[in-house]
Order: sequence, then structure tokens, then C-alpha cells
Amino acid sequence: MTHQTIRILGLDPGLRNTGWGLITSQGNRLSHVAHGVVKSTPDLSLSDRLTELYRGLTDVIDQYTPHEAAVEETFMNTNAASALKLGMARGVVLLAPATQGLIVGEYSANKVKKSVVGVGHADKNQVAAMVQRLLPTAGIVKADAADALAVAICHAHHRHSR
Amino acid sequence: MTHQTIRILGLDPGLRNTGWGLITSQGNRLSHVAHGVVKSTPDLSLSDRLTELYRGLTDVIDQYTPHEAAVEETFMNTNAASALKLGMARGVVLLAPATQGLIVGEYSANKVKKSVVGVGHADKNQVAAMVQRLLPTAGIVKADAADALAVAICHAHHRHSR
Repeated sequence: MTHQTIRILGLDPGLRNTGWGLITSQGNRLSHVAHGVVKSTPDLSLSDRLTELYRGLTDVIDQYTPHEAAVEETFMNTNAASALKLGMARGVVLLAPATQGLIVGEYSANKVKKSVVGVGHADKNQVAAMVQRLLPTAGIVKADAADALAVAICHAHHRHSR
Repeated sequence: MTHQTIRILGLDPGLRNTGWGLITSQGNRLSHVAHGVVKSTPDLSLSDRLTELYRGLTDVIDQYTPHEAAVEETFMNTNAASALKLGMARGVVLLAPATQGLIVGEYSANKVKKSVVGVGHADKNQVAAMVQRLLPTAGIVKADAADALAVAICHAHHRHSR
């Protein structure tokens, strides 16, 4: 039995730093392809910063041609001002793959953690450690990109049950 | 002395309904061109709803070729969950004109109200009434589009001092 290879782009939204991570999934086998962070320039206007994020993400999509994308649903333990700011980044991060024709999965933070660590209440360091164990060729990965790879792994596990 | 005619697109972001209003400004003279609402379909995924907003707005921009855009800074008297949702719509609304090459002005709600009503604490009905007085050919305008026309008027007044 052969399995199709699917390229999955995981995304961890933030106005200043949006992490991205690309993996392939072939049956049960996951492989790391690339990861990075798209940054916006703090002293630009909001519309220009969001444009930087959008263009940065469409560049990643053009370069790596993922088949599907996945975004983590955001934590709500913030005040309204932070939530509004995070929402703006998240809106653009959900939009960019959709305008490029990709389906976009959304997963709760708990579901992502369960997928990579086995429990829903792991901390960031545990997530990063398990991402490196599951994707050994990734090397040392910083937090934003590790979270992005984690949501890509979660999507690889759950995409067939969607 | 002749004045250039500037077409200004005002935008009032919302995930379900984003109001838009187009005016021209020539010196002190403001004229109504068109207004409307871009809607998203509640039972679609967030990324599909944001794509509807983005495409709806780029269609308006393609049709009316505004020179500049203006968006109201959002109220903060909401909880974090509502702020996150509004933020997603707002992110896409700030992005759409910027990716089409327009400069995007941002104005506080108080500044918009001062521009059209003369005081910073007017209610929605007062804003709509003054928008109709300032743009008599607009006819009866519903709240979302009235707020969008109001922010366009505000931008017409303030664009030179930016």
C-alpha cells in the first residue's frame, strides 16, 4: 500500500513574529522540510505591518507549495487590547493560505499539545522538545517555529478525521 | 485655485458585516459616490469568512479605484473573545486596501465623531443623521455604511495633517 505525500504548513500567529513550519506527512511518517519566522516592523503602521505578514506568508507558500495549512486557535487569557492585536495577526494568518487556495485547519492549543506531547497541558519547552524528537532533522527550533511545527504535526494526525 | 479630486474609501470592520463608503473630496467639497456592506457567511470556517471579506473589499476597490482608505480604530469596551473576533476582521480590513497599494489612515472613534458631529461622544443615530446632512445624495444609509462614510469624511478633513 502506498501513501500520498502531503506537505503541511503550520502557522503560529503573532503581529511581531508569526512562526511557520513545513512538514511532509506520508502515512504515519512525518518529515521536517523547513521552518522560520515572518516578522513585521514595529514602527510601521498597522496596515503596513499586516501587509508584511501577508506578503511574507505568501512568499513561504509560493516557495514551498504546501497542500494544506493549519493554525492554532489562540489562547484567550489576555485583555481585550492584546486580543484585538493578536486577532489582527490571526486574521491575516488565516487569510493568506486561504487566498492561495489551501484548506486551513484550526486546532485548539490543547489538541495541538495532545498531538505532540500526549497531554493537553504541556508547557512550551515540552512542546519544543517533542517537536525535535518527532522531527529530528529540524535541529534546534525556537519557540514560534516549534509551535508552528507542532500544529502542522497535529494536522497530520487529524486531517483524515476532519 | 483648483483642487484635486480625491476618492476616499471609508471602512467599518466587522466579521459578519463590514461597512464601506466611498466619497470624493475636492477642496472643502465632499460628495457621496457609493456605499454598501461586505458580508461573510456565518457557517463557513473563519479562513473562508475572512477570504469573503478580503475578496469583497478588493472587488469594491477594483470597481471604484479609491486613492486612499480610512479605518476607524476599534472600541475596546468588549471582552477578549469579541476583541479577538473583531481583530481578525479588522486585520483583513486594514490589509485589503494596503495590498492594493492604497495608503490607509486610522482614526479613533472620537476623532471620527468630532469630524462629523462636532463632539466626540455622539451616538450612532447622530452620526448617521450628520452623514446624511453632509452627503445629501446618499439617501438613507444603514449604520455600518454610515460609520464607514463617517470615517471617510474624517479622513477628508485630516489627510493633509497626517
